[in-house]
Amino acid sequence: MSRPTPHVAVDRDVLEDNIHAMQRAADAARLALRPHAKTHKSLQVARLQLAAGAVGLTVATVSEAEVFAEVCDDLFVAYPLWMDDERTGRLRRLLDRAGVTVGVDSVDSVRRLAPLAGAGLRVRIEVDSGHHRSGVPVGEVLAIATAAAEADVAVDGVFTFPGHSYSPDSRASAAADEQRELGAARDALEAGGVPCAAVSGGSTPSVAYARAEVLTEVRPGVYVFGDAQQWELGTIAPQQVALTVVATVVGRYPDRVVLDAGSKVLGADRSSWATGHGRLLDHPDAVITALSEHHATVTGFDAPRGTRVRVVPNHVCTAVNLADELVVADGTWRVDARGANT
Amino acid sequence: MSRPTPHVAVDRDVLEDNIHAMQRAADAARLALRPHAKTHKSLQVARLQLAAGAVGLTVATVSEAEVFAEVCDDLFVAYPLWMDDERTGRLRRLLDRAGVTVGVDSVDSVRRLAPLAGAGLRVRIEVDSGHHRSGVPVGEVLAIATAAAEADVAVDGVFTFPGHSYSPDSRASAAADEQRELGAARDALEAGGVPCAAVSGGSTPSVAYARAEVLTEVRPGVYVFGDAQQWELGTIAPQQVALTVVATVVGRYPDRVVLDAGSKVLGADRSSWATGHGRLLDHPDAVITALSEHHATVTGFDAPRGTRVRVVPNHVCTAVNLADELVVADGTWRVDARGANT
Repeated sequence: MSRPTPHVAVDRDVLEDNIHAMQRAADAARLALRPHAKTHKSLQVARLQLAAGAVGLTVATVSEAEVFAEVCDDLFVAYPLWMDDERTGRLRRLLDRAGVTVGVDSVDSVRRLAPLAGAGLRVRIEVDSGHHRSGVPVGEVLAIATAAAEADVAVDGVFTFPGHSYSPDSRASAAADEQRELGAARDALEAGGVPCAAVSGGSTPSVAYARAEVLTEVRPGVYVFGDAQQWELGTIAPQQVALTVVATVVGRYPDRVVLDAGSKVLGADRSSWATGHGRLLDHPDAVITALSEHHATVTGFDAPRGTRVRVVPNHVCTAVNLADELVVADGTWRVDARGANT
Repeated sequence: MSRPTPHVAVDRDVLEDNIHAMQRAADAARLALRPHAKTHKSLQVARLQLAAGAVGLTVATVSEAEVFAEVCDDLFVAYPLWMDDERTGRLRRLLDRAGVTVGVDSVDSVRRLAPLAGAGLRVRIEVDSGHHRSGVPVGEVLAIATAAAEADVAVDGVFTFPGHSYSPDSRASAAADEQRELGAARDALEAGGVPCAAVSGGSTPSVAYARAEVLTEVRPGVYVFGDAQQWELGTIAPQQVALTVVATVVGRYPDRVVLDAGSKVLGADRSSWATGHGRLLDHPDAVITALSEHHATVTGFDAPRGTRVRVVPNHVCTAVNLADELVVADGTWRVDARGANT
């Protein structure tokens, strides 16, 4: 009896190809690869990445780090954590299990990490390279490093997220911004006597442009599965999409069909430049014109009710976070860190 | 020690006020209230709705029905189910536990329900009243009812979802469309000798306009918690928002602050007319200008790092579906039907 739709399916062959291709590219560029585990949230996928040569994992939250400490002893929380007593306690316990580096982008936040200095915590300073989310201008990094030194907290380098690479025609320019700002931040720290072992950048759209002249490591996430955003940005070909939502045609009307996959399985992410609310992997001319919680409205495609199709989510990270499990050929993999937001 | 952020908090007093106010309004309008449980996915909230006078529950999937059969014996799956062997088996087992009505909008799909006719399944025919998602024009309802009769499947009436009411200035006109099309569909069935006990409509934006001259029941969902969409549509006042995501200011920059609540807790829904990616309940002038998975970028608001704020999701149904539990004053409530998409 077939598995009910909608469900999230992973093509393991494509997944492994993606993992090995990214590792080979990083090796060839003499860059360490520290994949972002927020994309897959799966210990099984993390094991494959580490076996292929990843130096460690990137995560977004302490609770994700708690999950991935089971398979990895070198974790980077690439997030400007604000510590309170609860989180400090959790991070202290985590440091007994793994090496942990966390992001900082203010003097205030680095001071709050002081209680963990003796436990071996390292920090990495976040630079704003043009995405204008978190991170500081280059001119502020030395003050943060100085505050860290006063708090006895070890600084291991700098990082940025060039999120403005998620836009048509800006992959190369965002990568250039990243390289310039990270290089300047490293120089500012070293001029102040702070060694900078790690210079970390790289998103899936920008990673192909990363250069070891400045960077020491890259942190792409989405590449493991691919998604409709990367397909439409030209970062990947549709043959590199490893994760799809299997859906059934439940409605058929003169101008459209309706699938049983909506925003509660695909996620509602939609960039301004996206052609629709996801793509049909095997029908590239189809357009998902509307998305409700349990309905995808599709034009440019026709099939009888009951037909199964493979839908590529716009943003795979949020689609995975909606699923409890990923269906592979020989079983299922748990989404171990689903909902791990704290 | 305080609960870590982000987390989803429910104000039980506001929730109960919302439940009782909607029940009073339905009673005064002589309409049965069958709340849509996809909004809260919580047995605890369903119990409150049923205790207040709801005649049953609406759900979107068979798996939601399986969860809510624990507290309710009158369930309507308001969705054009396409039955395969797996789903037929589940629905058959469900019919041993509860009365179940399911949506149909084609001759093909009603025929596939024939194996369940003996188990007491009822169907309700979906009419497209202007949202152009699922549902049929009035001219097609009698043919579906005839196919149901041939398959020995009981038809209990008609329904629609006036989803085009989710837009500024269209609440009243969408409700008028709903009333007109449902009335015509009922008349068409009755002219063909098919009694029409249920004439079911009503979304949260349109429900105030529903009239017992045509409708027999309404199915609003979002009203229990409210959300930023309803606030901006004018359906509710901010005082009626019962669910918020509690977040912490983790970044503070000259032109913005950053909160630790992103699309993995708020959901990424954003209508074209929304002012941002959610609202700050206690700071109505603030704008969430950007949303990443774990960052909300906010302008028009300033506060020191570590400050906690209450964020109102744009669309509460998808935010609840991301959470494993809802935090109330004296504990937590499970999101029992989280991820119940099949």
